[in-house]
Amino acid sequence: METEEERTFDFARTVALSDGVFAIALTLLVLSITVPTLSSGHHGELDRRLLHRGSEFGSYALSFVVIAGLWVRHHTFFRELRRVDGRITVLNLVYLGFVAFLPYPTRVLGLYGDQAIAVTLYAATAGTLGLLAGLSRTHALRAGLVSPAGRRQLGRREHPALVPTVFLASIPIAWASTTAALLSWLLLAIFPALRQRLGQRKPGAQ
Amino acid sequence: METEEERTFDFARTVALSDGVFAIALTLLVLSITVPTLSSGHHGELDRRLLHRGSEFGSYALSFVVIAGLWVRHHTFFRELRRVDGRITVLNLVYLGFVAFLPYPTRVLGLYGDQAIAVTLYAATAGTLGLLAGLSRTHALRAGLVSPAGRRQLGRREHPALVPTVFLASIPIAWASTTAALLSWLLLAIFPALRQRLGQRKPGAQ
Amino acid sequence: METEEERTFDFARTVALSDGVFAIALTLLVLSITVPTLSSGHHGELDRRLLHRGSEFGSYALSFVVIAGLWVRHHTFFRELRRVDGRITVLNLVYLGFVAFLPYPTRVLGLYGDQAIAVTLYAATAGTLGLLAGLSRTHALRAGLVSPAGRRQLGRREHPALVPTVFLASIPIAWASTTAALLSWLLLAIFPALRQRLGQRKPGAQ
Amino acid sequence: METEEERTFDFARTVALSDGVFAIALTLLVLSITVPTLSSGHHGELDRRLLHRGSEFGSYALSFVVIAGLWVRHHTFFRELRRVDGRITVLNLVYLGFVAFLPYPTRVLGLYGDQAIAVTLYAATAGTLGLLAGLSRTHALRAGLVSPAGRRQLGRREHPALVPTVFLASIPIAWASTTAALLSWLLLAIFPALRQRLGQRKPGAQ
Repeated sequence: METEEERTFDFARTVALSDGVFAIALTLLVLSITVPTLSSGHHGELDRRLLHRGSEFGSYALSFVVIAGLWVRHHTFFRELRRVDGRITVLNLVYLGFVAFLPYPTRVLGLYGDQAIAVTLYAATAGTLGLLAGLSRTHALRAGLVSPAGRRQLGRREHPALVPTVFLASIPIAWASTTAALLSWLLLAIFPALRQRLGQRKPGAQ
Repeated sequence: METEEERTFDFARTVALSDGVFAIALTLLVLSITVPTLSSGHHGELDRRLLHRGSEFGSYALSFVVIAGLWVRHHTFFRELRRVDGRITVLNLVYLGFVAFLPYPTRVLGLYGDQAIAVTLYAATAGTLGLLAGLSRTHALRAGLVSPAGRRQLGRREHPALVPTVFLASIPIAWASTTAALLSWLLLAIFPALRQRLGQRKPGAQ
Repeated sequence: METEEERTFDFARTVALSDGVFAIALTLLVLSITVPTLSSGHHGELDRRLLHRGSEFGSYALSFVVIAGLWVRHHTFFRELRRVDGRITVLNLVYLGFVAFLPYPTRVLGLYGDQAIAVTLYAATAGTLGLLAGLSRTHALRAGLVSPAGRRQLGRREHPALVPTVFLASIPIAWASTTAALLSWLLLAIFPALRQRLGQRKPGAQ
Repeated sequence: METEEERTFDFARTVALSDGVFAIALTLLVLSITVPTLSSGHHGELDRRLLHRGSEFGSYALSFVVIAGLWVRHHTFFRELRRVDGRITVLNLVYLGFVAFLPYPTRVLGLYGDQAIAVTLYAATAGTLGLLAGLSRTHALRAGLVSPAGRRQLGRREHPALVPTVFLASIPIAWASTTAALLSWLLLAIFPALRQRLGQRKPGAQ
């Protein structure tokens, strides 16, 4: 049987590993932006060559927003946990595997955003992340890993099936129109802001 | 002589460095998957070109599972330690050197899994990791670095020679058949699940 | 409403993520220096080829000094905070996005320091970092996130608009003379040393 | 004036940033080993091509040992500090800049170990690291940052000028014989083992 101290240690190291993966995923993104190589006589073309990288800068910004958003959610979820068990540890490791993978589909999307396959790859990755987060939340609530206050906090979030449903539903849409699929994701960005404005009237709640 | 405070500090920094190496090794893996470069007229080929990278995605997943598995074992081992001494510090640093190296043989295996040398390189690295983990465990138990409760926990694990033996034994097998060698590793994946089901009847034990 | 424990957790993870991003941004810089590739008969040319990389070494040193300087400021700012709220979290994440991006403009500046666009890209990034740091400070003071002692410490710093103003003002200068723009940044490096010598007479203040 | 809490915070973040830089420098090394690319008909050449990378594996091992050794020294130094001041912070940041840079000269040395310039670059980097560590130790002792017990611990180390002197002295040797210069470094590896055997008779001292 585990002692209290062991639980604290498990918890601290799980959070430390997770923060490490998030920090590195965030910082590695800059490597995906290429530096223009100009021969000595053509330095004057630098303006044009940097502007030409617009989609790479956009892809960097998108990746950063997505991973930072996932970190905020991960952080508010783990804040409510009193301890972690083996299943949460495994779910969290698989989740981190998809966080660390996310720069790849984001980069493909930045370069080939007009292709249904690029949108599909991204939606499948993000949908899986949503599914894993939902499974973790559901398990934590059932297994009593969450404090009563945390239970209320997590209960106030959107239904755990919402994020994966939106992303998985966008995959068939992408094969008709990639623009429509991208717009359908925006609903998820608008949703929490809407809910926060309508539902949460308590001060101090993030 | 060391004070209690110094021991705590040693312990905390050793764990912090280890978690850092694990987190970075996990996250660097994504850099090994190459993004297809398509000329502007051939964007339609993206599907085919991504599917062609199946082995690179597989190699990413394999690496992630292996390193995550090592982290869980490292984590449950350090959880039972009351303090670290010079020998554990050195063994741990050498161990981390092989953890940080692991993406290399995994990548070679992902690309050339049909070659005995690729399987040999991977088995030698994983076998060495098993050997170092076994040495650390044996030393920690002998030098009294483990609490009585931790002693029971670690005693319940498989024999420290099992993992290195399986991997080192798979090397000659690989030169007859790489498939047979890869299948022999699967026994190690099945073994802990079997043991957990049969041997550990206490609740809360990971 | 948040409990005290939750606030501590938020704070600890925000600081951990930030330190991770700073540490990785600092360490990734070395990847931007290329190793000369010499054919076996021309090893003797190594001296000349390494000296030729002078601007890459300079760009590494500049990046390191800038990011280390930002870390010191980030660190002394967070030291004065009693807790973080949602807005500080968001401002900090955007700030980290620009910290992680900084190696890119620094590299472009190291290679093409004679081009106004390279200086502009760098000044815009650094100016945005200054702006975000200023916004964070102003918000923290207004929202009561700072202890009374911290309030005095932060009040002793330069005006929050100074850093962004100097950088944004250097952009038009760069299009007349890149050297003049680079020299205008040096004023910022001299300024804190001047202030420290003149204004702060208390011992122990960093 | 700083409060006790502020000092603890400074200390914790300085250590966290340092461990991050060490962990990343250790883990990035694996990226410097290239994976052989074989056309589909020549997979059988993999053995030969991997063996051909012997110097890259050696350079990985050397880098890992050097950075791990620096981490142990950094760690035992910071263990004795009661607090950090501005000067230690700056010295530590410059030190970390050279730690993060070390993979570059190590790689050059691994590829061109027979060239005096490669040995010179490495010796200059390592010598500077030794010099900075010596300056930090001297400053910490003079400024009273070290506890009385730590003062005795640090006093038992070798003279702070030893490491930089050996490395800087090896530079002119390298221009006569690179082998002699490399052998002169080995003395430093033998020295601590010798001292530990002869001088330290207290139990528990690392």
